[in-house]
Amino acid sequence: MVKVALVGFGTVGQGLVEILVEKQAELRQNHGFDCQICGIADIAKGSVIDANGLDLEILLASFQAHGDLRHLPAFQEKNDSDAVIRESGATVLVEATPTNLRTAQPALRHVTAALETGMHVVTCNKGPVALAYADLMALAHKNNVEFYFESTVMSGTPVLNLVATCLKGCRISGVAGIFNGTTNYILSEMESGREYRDVLEEAQRLGYAEADPSGDVDGWDALAKVVILANVIMGENLRIEDVERQGISHLQPKDIAAATAQNGRWKLIGAVRRTENGVKASVKPLIIPLTEPLAGVMGVTNAITFATDLLGPVTVSGAGAGKQETAFGLLNDLLRIDA
Amino acid sequence: MVKVALVGFGTVGQGLVEILVEKQAELRQNHGFDCQICGIADIAKGSVIDANGLDLEILLASFQAHGDLRHLPAFQEKNDSDAVIRESGATVLVEATPTNLRTAQPALRHVTAALETGMHVVTCNKGPVALAYADLMALAHKNNVEFYFESTVMSGTPVLNLVATCLKGCRISGVAGIFNGTTNYILSEMESGREYRDVLEEAQRLGYAEADPSGDVDGWDALAKVVILANVIMGENLRIEDVERQGISHLQPKDIAAATAQNGRWKLIGAVRRTENGVKASVKPLIIPLTEPLAGVMGVTNAITFATDLLGPVTVSGAGAGKQETAFGLLNDLLRIDA
Repeated sequence: MVKVALVGFGTVGQGLVEILVEKQAELRQNHGFDCQICGIADIAKGSVIDANGLDLEILLASFQAHGDLRHLPAFQEKNDSDAVIRESGATVLVEATPTNLRTAQPALRHVTAALETGMHVVTCNKGPVALAYADLMALAHKNNVEFYFESTVMSGTPVLNLVATCLKGCRISGVAGIFNGTTNYILSEMESGREYRDVLEEAQRLGYAEADPSGDVDGWDALAKVVILANVIMGENLRIEDVERQGISHLQPKDIAAATAQNGRWKLIGAVRRTENGVKASVKPLIIPLTEPLAGVMGVTNAITFATDLLGPVTVSGAGAGKQETAFGLLNDLLRIDA
Repeated sequence: MVKVALVGFGTVGQGLVEILVEKQAELRQNHGFDCQICGIADIAKGSVIDANGLDLEILLASFQAHGDLRHLPAFQEKNDSDAVIRESGATVLVEATPTNLRTAQPALRHVTAALETGMHVVTCNKGPVALAYADLMALAHKNNVEFYFESTVMSGTPVLNLVATCLKGCRISGVAGIFNGTTNYILSEMESGREYRDVLEEAQRLGYAEADPSGDVDGWDALAKVVILANVIMGENLRIEDVERQGISHLQPKDIAAATAQNGRWKLIGAVRRTENGVKASVKPLIIPLTEPLAGVMGVTNAITFATDLLGPVTVSGAGAGKQETAFGLLNDLLRIDA
């Protein structure tokens, strides 16, 4: 039995609860997986604790009716993520608060508290992993618990767990990928001759891009994933500021046409590679030949190519974001802990 | 300590031994993996047994000098794969004899004997998995041992282990892929206007295609992989004869040009999908739009797209064959047993 404390009940947290309800019988039958959620804390929606496991169908119904958790019997007057982590009887923290790449807070506090208490941690929050991976992994080892975060790179599409399991035995000498769906959508749409500004506005209307698009179009989101990949799968110790960064907002229709003319496509590529002068990490637009797997990755899809010693290049493409897709990454990490 | 009986000492078996020698320290340090080979049997090269583990460096040196195993002190006068499986003290059989899609022999006998003895089995041989998966898996369950065969589909590129670990929690509703490098190479080369016959002859000169190319160009090799995928990851019980099959030898330069004109490419696609009338499985050439990930897979590279319920489509591309690439799949399976 996996007993979860869920901190952060936004889109992804809700998605995880929905999957656990829908797939309860399937997960038990196919994988022997039983899971209770013993507490939920969300700064805007309130906290609930039930050490015997919350009734998730009632919880979802009440949340859908009211938009918060305060109509549930297990509601806590004092909104306290610490209590949900330490006092719910949970054995695993699922941290699903929004990413902050400057301070990693409040997620870093949540993750640290859980690991110190001897709980496993699963998170989709890039902040703690991009800013404090080495410290957190040392803390996890010290307390003999697991720290998994598949969803931080390409949502639940297999990347970090792939390296840990299916590529186990290979050495990874470099990675290159498309780690941001918004920018890939913009670049894909610009192939029909449209201006950057027009496509960005459309992406904002469709909900692919935020009102302040800087996190996507200036490369920050992809950069966080590059730092995670360098540190987790290549054993480096990079910081955010160690990565060369260039966005896509300077690209014009004539640049797109020039790429087409040479049988290539612009892609915002995040890459880590070993060189004679140490590791180089970067996020920048590059023209990729149409014969390369990454060139065929269109729209909001993400992809990664691993350079390996025994298998040569291995490329994985799939969803890079999404409620269900990101929640699946959390579920897959929970299944990995339970295996 | 994993103690291996290796049956079949052709290219892939040799590749595994070479990797175990080269990576011994790395595998021990990074994964706590210690592995002995306690016996090797090959119908042409002879048998060796040493329950304390063969010295693999001496073995490779002797094999390279003589082309067989008979100059080693552990050489057995009686060439007997049964003895290597049952009397070497091994806990895992690695079955690496050549594939036979009509009878699955002699691999089926080797695998059955090992499972009955309570040994785990790892194989790159498509025969037993394509012809007898359900029976062999039942036997493995009965004896509480593992039966892994990552290398049977796309060599060591993550496919079957990916579904079992990184896609655990998803339902797979269909797969489509490029499962044969020879035919993909031929179709890629025909894009420059060359005739099928000319490219096939070149592929034979390069060693990509065999003297009798039927296994590749008529779709049999891809078909075996489709049967394995249907039965292993989609829970079906297909036989070879249940799969629609069409090869590529009828395609002419004008067909290739017609695909190019409609922004597509011919690919020999193996597919399994659920329909209202049950599961449909096929291997046949299809025109894939250039915007699809499978269209960008060129040369001898293989690829697979999984249709999943929670993640949408996930595509993996990489090596489909090769000494080291296939041997890596065996190693990854051994690491999975040892985990």
